[in-house]
Amino acid sequence: MLTIDFNCDMGEGFGRYTMGRDRELLPHVTSANIACGFHAGDAMCMHRTVSLAELSGVGVGAHPGLPDLMGFGRRSMAIDPMEAKNYVKYQIGALRAFARGGKIQHVKPHGALYNMGVQDESLANAVAEAVKEVDPELILVGLAGSHWIAAGMSLGLRVAREVFADRAFNADGSLVDRRVKGAVLENVADVLARTLKMVKEGKVTAVTGREIPCSGDTLCLHGDTPGAVALAANLRRHLEEAGITVAPMGTFV
Amino acid sequence: MLTIDFNCDMGEGFGRYTMGRDRELLPHVTSANIACGFHAGDAMCMHRTVSLAELSGVGVGAHPGLPDLMGFGRRSMAIDPMEAKNYVKYQIGALRAFARGGKIQHVKPHGALYNMGVQDESLANAVAEAVKEVDPELILVGLAGSHWIAAGMSLGLRVAREVFADRAFNADGSLVDRRVKGAVLENVADVLARTLKMVKEGKVTAVTGREIPCSGDTLCLHGDTPGAVALAANLRRHLEEAGITVAPMGTFV
Amino acid sequence: MLTIDFNCDMGEGFGRYTMGRDRELLPHVTSANIACGFHAGDAMCMHRTVSLAELSGVGVGAHPGLPDLMGFGRRSMAIDPMEAKNYVKYQIGALRAFARGGKIQHVKPHGALYNMGVQDESLANAVAEAVKEVDPELILVGLAGSHWIAAGMSLGLRVAREVFADRAFNADGSLVDRRVKGAVLENVADVLARTLKMVKEGKVTAVTGREIPCSGDTLCLHGDTPGAVALAANLRRHLEEAGITVAPMGTFV
Amino acid sequence: MLTIDFNCDMGEGFGRYTMGRDRELLPHVTSANIACGFHAGDAMCMHRTVSLAELSGVGVGAHPGLPDLMGFGRRSMAIDPMEAKNYVKYQIGALRAFARGGKIQHVKPHGALYNMGVQDESLANAVAEAVKEVDPELILVGLAGSHWIAAGMSLGLRVAREVFADRAFNADGSLVDRRVKGAVLENVADVLARTLKMVKEGKVTAVTGREIPCSGDTLCLHGDTPGAVALAANLRRHLEEAGITVAPMGTFV
Repeated sequence: MLTIDFNCDMGEGFGRYTMGRDRELLPHVTSANIACGFHAGDAMCMHRTVSLAELSGVGVGAHPGLPDLMGFGRRSMAIDPMEAKNYVKYQIGALRAFARGGKIQHVKPHGALYNMGVQDESLANAVAEAVKEVDPELILVGLAGSHWIAAGMSLGLRVAREVFADRAFNADGSLVDRRVKGAVLENVADVLARTLKMVKEGKVTAVTGREIPCSGDTLCLHGDTPGAVALAANLRRHLEEAGITVAPMGTFV
Repeated sequence: MLTIDFNCDMGEGFGRYTMGRDRELLPHVTSANIACGFHAGDAMCMHRTVSLAELSGVGVGAHPGLPDLMGFGRRSMAIDPMEAKNYVKYQIGALRAFARGGKIQHVKPHGALYNMGVQDESLANAVAEAVKEVDPELILVGLAGSHWIAAGMSLGLRVAREVFADRAFNADGSLVDRRVKGAVLENVADVLARTLKMVKEGKVTAVTGREIPCSGDTLCLHGDTPGAVALAANLRRHLEEAGITVAPMGTFV
Repeated sequence: MLTIDFNCDMGEGFGRYTMGRDRELLPHVTSANIACGFHAGDAMCMHRTVSLAELSGVGVGAHPGLPDLMGFGRRSMAIDPMEAKNYVKYQIGALRAFARGGKIQHVKPHGALYNMGVQDESLANAVAEAVKEVDPELILVGLAGSHWIAAGMSLGLRVAREVFADRAFNADGSLVDRRVKGAVLENVADVLARTLKMVKEGKVTAVTGREIPCSGDTLCLHGDTPGAVALAANLRRHLEEAGITVAPMGTFV
Repeated sequence: MLTIDFNCDMGEGFGRYTMGRDRELLPHVTSANIACGFHAGDAMCMHRTVSLAELSGVGVGAHPGLPDLMGFGRRSMAIDPMEAKNYVKYQIGALRAFARGGKIQHVKPHGALYNMGVQDESLANAVAEAVKEVDPELILVGLAGSHWIAAGMSLGLRVAREVFADRAFNADGSLVDRRVKGAVLENVADVLARTLKMVKEGKVTAVTGREIPCSGDTLCLHGDTPGAVALAANLRRHLEEAGITVAPMGTFV
């Protein structure tokens, strides 16, 4: 049976600032990546978001980022692997304090930290160690085919390969740079077709027209775009109509 | 058998900043209150300090503070009980991520948060709930006779009553304001005598000359004064010579 | 001729977070209190907001707050007058760097700092010194009748007495606590009538029904309520129709 | 007449944290680069340090850094030129608020920001614009021969070319990476000889043995090494004995 998880970043407010439409998206996703106070999120926001996600039956995950609230964790920083490891341990620990029984489902690095680990093996390994040391049952989420997946597997962690249905791919399987026109697909029918192909055939059509392999366990949904809620609901309905199960990664990876 | 714990604040650096003499004090204390990133401490510092404390056989505790690095958590802030609760959960969780098996011994609120809870029952209750929700085995440390102790006990938590050997007491059992001359005792012989009296007789002589009850489970040692290390070593030797056991609070409260 | 200024807090975003409806409000107000990076605002946001305000012909002011981004500067903190003074100097200086010719019009303390100075004379004095030392031409804005006004005047600063048209007053001239029902007036006609009375007669009707003196130079408009823009536009039109000039405080205090 | 400035980073504390030996170094240096609250420094510390430097007759400069207190501004971050520009304006403005008459002498970017501008022309240009927009009289300090100097000159700013007497040079004029053994010279006689050669002949001997051109206006002294104070005093005496004037850069560039 074909199964996929829908993950979405949540709990990205800070103090009186709000961001995203968590409440509206929760019914449509199966895993929530919750900001842990470095790039976004604070203790109050984490408390609210974890409670909401648990009530919704969604898998709760830590979304650790770089210590850069001003840049929302999207600017790469020259931190070393040991710093990355300890920053991630700190953030996972903090989030677990708000979870029922202290247990969460997964860890997905955020923003620049995510992108840095895609390219930097030692950073990915250090973060995977952080995950394992805090709780070896945790699932590490990372870009399909990247160092994140290898790092998690080499430590015996469960991993979830992330795929993107609204992003264009280069022929080598990498994502087209966001600054390039066409890098983000906006046509809903395209995104739907693309997702189905990924899940059913394990393939995606690159910008060159070539079909390349692309399998994943969890689909990244963006919560901050205008049509995000409708897209999530649509995607989920179409996948389910096509016989695909949409479920929290913790139930199948 | 008479037993007392020696607790000391540790891990109070931040980034490249250092504070205190943790390595020198560790052999002489039995419990370490480790800063968790709000008033001091960061993930690197927490990692190092927890490891050091564990290697030294010292009880590891969280030392959660107010979100005020600039003021070192020593300035009271008008936070509400729910904020206090979530700030403390966050910090305990973060520290536990660095501890062997994710287990720590105790939680001692820091600075202004500690002082606020001495006077504010609802704040003390909220923080005690935070402690219990993260781990009901944790010991809550607070000023002997204060709301902290009542709050912990009413939730069924283990508590450790803290006493101060180098502080003058008013006749009503409260500490003399630090700004008053004589509020902090500097004569080592006096501090020794005072500690012995507290531990053996459960009494202290107030500034009025009257003897008042003063029993505790853990003695607060300051790590940032010039003679701190020598004082700790001296105190411990004298207490042990007097037949008193100095041991981590977790072994006896 | 009767004249009044309309001031409004602006530039309260941080990083990717946004707050308020600055662009829509700017055509209707005459002075902007711009956050300076402590309770809200960052360098990018300050740059944008100062530029916008200058383009709109609005008086640019610094809106210094407590170092508490997590609490949006709304939680009082036990800082001492010297800290308040230096925090305010820092923030005024930072804002001036973005202003044409390095000149701004006024300084209005934010949130808890504003409220603290209303009650604490030494704090108000220290902040007034900060304003004077950075630029003795600056106008200090504070609650009409409070220590802020006395502090500014005693140093020879120009001051602007702030009044609130949508807040209920106690018979002693203080504002009714926001938590009390009826503390904030929501009926637009009431707010309009009240404002006219304040400006033309220098009086307001307290909750006891008694008329009390209430004169001011600048009216505080809130930018974060749903009807804020319409209310500002309405108020301004009515005042102007009643022959009252609405102009930046710098032109008349 | 040969003249050189001695510059040193100062005011690098934060809250209760201290760093460096500012008071002892001040008699021996002629320009102070004062941290402005991003990588180090806070308003209280800036106030104290600016006052001290002014009393000592030392040229006061802003030392703006990246928004990374945890990393002391030493970790490069992917900020764009506009962010760099606004961050620097903010920090210069903040520092000026503490200076007599609001005037300071120079701006020297700190740590990773300094190194980034050495290599990144658009970043150096953006920061130079920031300096000019805040005060066109300010001197921009940057590595001799780097983009910093070109950026300042192209905007008509006064510039001060910085040289290092305790660092090894590659044959192409770049500094040997700090992680390479021998990158930092520790023999005082060597440092003295090297400085004299730089100032008198405008040359330095690279690690290959080749003499390469190396002229500068200001010599960087490190304040955080054990022998820093003695070295500064020694260097200054030797240079003065050799007929070289040591004076604030503002008097001669």
